[in-house]
Amino acid sequence: MQAEIITIGDELLLGQTVDTNSAWMGEELRKKGVSVNRIVSISDRPSEISAALDEALSRVDLVLVTGGLGPTRDDVTKHTLADYFNTDLVLDQDVLDRITAWFEGRKLKMLPSNCDQALLPESCVILPNPRGTAMGMWFDTLREGKDKVVVSMPGVPYEMKGLMEEEVMPRVESKWSLPVRYQKTVLTQGIGESFLSAIVHDWEEGLESRGIGIAYLPAPGQVRIRLSSIGEDADSRVDDAMKELLDQAGEHVVAEDGMSLEEALIAALGRAEASLSTAESCTGGSIAARLTAIPGASAVFEGSIVAYANGIKTHVLGVDAQLIEAHGAVSEEVVRAMAEGVRKAMKTTYALATSGIAGPGGATPTKAVGTIWIALASPKGTHTRCLQLGNHRGRNIARTALECMGWLLRELRSA
Amino acid sequence: MQAEIITIGDELLLGQTVDTNSAWMGEELRKKGVSVNRIVSISDRPSEISAALDEALSRVDLVLVTGGLGPTRDDVTKHTLADYFNTDLVLDQDVLDRITAWFEGRKLKMLPSNCDQALLPESCVILPNPRGTAMGMWFDTLREGKDKVVVSMPGVPYEMKGLMEEEVMPRVESKWSLPVRYQKTVLTQGIGESFLSAIVHDWEEGLESRGIGIAYLPAPGQVRIRLSSIGEDADSRVDDAMKELLDQAGEHVVAEDGMSLEEALIAALGRAEASLSTAESCTGGSIAARLTAIPGASAVFEGSIVAYANGIKTHVLGVDAQLIEAHGAVSEEVVRAMAEGVRKAMKTTYALATSGIAGPGGATPTKAVGTIWIALASPKGTHTRCLQLGNHRGRNIARTALECMGWLLRELRSA
Repeated sequence: MQAEIITIGDELLLGQTVDTNSAWMGEELRKKGVSVNRIVSISDRPSEISAALDEALSRVDLVLVTGGLGPTRDDVTKHTLADYFNTDLVLDQDVLDRITAWFEGRKLKMLPSNCDQALLPESCVILPNPRGTAMGMWFDTLREGKDKVVVSMPGVPYEMKGLMEEEVMPRVESKWSLPVRYQKTVLTQGIGESFLSAIVHDWEEGLESRGIGIAYLPAPGQVRIRLSSIGEDADSRVDDAMKELLDQAGEHVVAEDGMSLEEALIAALGRAEASLSTAESCTGGSIAARLTAIPGASAVFEGSIVAYANGIKTHVLGVDAQLIEAHGAVSEEVVRAMAEGVRKAMKTTYALATSGIAGPGGATPTKAVGTIWIALASPKGTHTRCLQLGNHRGRNIARTALECMGWLLRELRSA
Repeated sequence: MQAEIITIGDELLLGQTVDTNSAWMGEELRKKGVSVNRIVSISDRPSEISAALDEALSRVDLVLVTGGLGPTRDDVTKHTLADYFNTDLVLDQDVLDRITAWFEGRKLKMLPSNCDQALLPESCVILPNPRGTAMGMWFDTLREGKDKVVVSMPGVPYEMKGLMEEEVMPRVESKWSLPVRYQKTVLTQGIGESFLSAIVHDWEEGLESRGIGIAYLPAPGQVRIRLSSIGEDADSRVDDAMKELLDQAGEHVVAEDGMSLEEALIAALGRAEASLSTAESCTGGSIAARLTAIPGASAVFEGSIVAYANGIKTHVLGVDAQLIEAHGAVSEEVVRAMAEGVRKAMKTTYALATSGIAGPGGATPTKAVGTIWIALASPKGTHTRCLQLGNHRGRNIARTALECMGWLLRELRSA
């Protein structure tokens, strides 16, 4: 079964908003066996919306529309859909009550334009949206003797996601009998897609004949590998193939089953009943921020000293000022003392430390931008490594954080 | 002048990749007076690519294509374009030399598929891509007596951006005489789009007749307002309107001229010759990470103590353990002591502190998820505030970081 996605809004065409909704919807649809044929972003002119609907309905059975709904935008999508499907807008008392309650719950004043949001096309199925004031709309329609569906949702990502999960996908699954897809993912780190692919080349060649699809999903410094299949024994076929993958490339795998590196590290620290602290200079607290973004981080993560200025390295972390003077703040000696200093101050099993030149400025005659020292202090002693990264500050910070966390995770696994 | 963007790749339709290229291109085009009519994402099947090109060329004069180029993808876009424009692929020795040099510079092995990247359509203008091995291609074509252009670029964002800035936009500007656009933006914080719009309603109504466009660009907790105009006196008309906006809504403005809140705060601290440290519990280092993401942060930002565990609050930050026992870690008393503790330890002019229940767990009978105390310590004393946010951990952390930074910025401006 094929679907298309239409995202509506001048802000998408003007580059004011990155369309993250489509990728999320594409993934949800794929998981349920629906493939997306096209994603089209258009302006909120009614003629554009109608033309895009005509085109999409000529190609596929399901059209998901987001955006162009909401009090300040004159609900252009709603009016256009009512015209397109030849139906009237009528007041839905139930929806009006929901909207009223939504405002009361937030102690916000309700504007007349919010009341208008309870005017909805008569012929559609209204999909309740408890997260906002613009409802979802499900239109059944007939094209060349075939049942087709247009669904309209607000463009606010978390409202759209709630509607997709609670209303749209259950209806899609019950309307079309969709094949069940089984998938497993692993997250690899520190190796590029083409090098990974070369390692597992022969195994990968054989996947197609076993009915298994493989996808490499790259992110900066990481590649997620996904195996998926539909039909009988999909689960055991995918599980077997995943075992073979781990045999061949397991050393590059940092997390399984859709986990992030941060989640895997927190889980591994928990299993080891170990605790962690960080002393961050060039990463500026981003290792701490990444870890504490995960619920439950407090069970294993004690805290961090972000020692951005040299004075903090000496006064708060206890790094010997002479060490900094002799070797510079970006040095093996200093990063080692930082890791040991924070491990002692925070009384943790492990400590990670970073000190480097993230760029774009800050290079010295002997140290280029992208020179970054990292240290891992553990009960068995302290180890250091030097990374040579590029010129891009944001990427250098992210890569350093990933390297540090991946390093500790491998250490925990080999312990 | 109108353009369309076609992004090619199954990964876009499967939700594996968020298309950030289109928004970036849309903004670049808009700045130069080119409006984007549609953005279409399609699979890398040749028939889909040809169909999308036909449709786009029937509507607009310029079609920008990204993706489907590269050694592992069989260069489907390149082959399809050669067929589409009835031209042969020929070896370009200059490009082969570039690609060879690219690999030599990185000490990487060159694969046969990389040599194939020097096979390029004979009829196109080759746009050199010093950042990678897939070149850009510029095709001039005639449709119904009108000069039209198709440009193909690789999908890797930083390669595409380099090609757009150095090759594509200069050619677009010289081919079509485009109106110059003048724009100014301000960043507001802590007030929603509809409330902002209500404050400046009358002023906003008058903008159209003055030839000034207004856009509200919302992000979590912030709204950027952009005024823009084309034609004679565009700069003075926009500048005047911006002054009027600041008169009416200046109290909500945290940054001007395209700056982020973090950049504005670092600049304001620099002007005041003041320094900053943070003591972060529920924000887990994300204020520090946001500030140190900005080049030059080291001039004003000394460091942070991320006191995630209560033990760190007492041992490292010097918060009285009895204070925590009496009031709980999430309390006015403790957040005040945290701010004062880190200000003293790091000897800074200002200090910010956070302690709260970011969620989703951690609520107590008297403190709901989203209860967050923040403190600002300054030479004049310490102030505290309590935020009541929602249930979403990531949003709570981000909102708290923004509130803290905005608070200090207002303090610096009123000093």
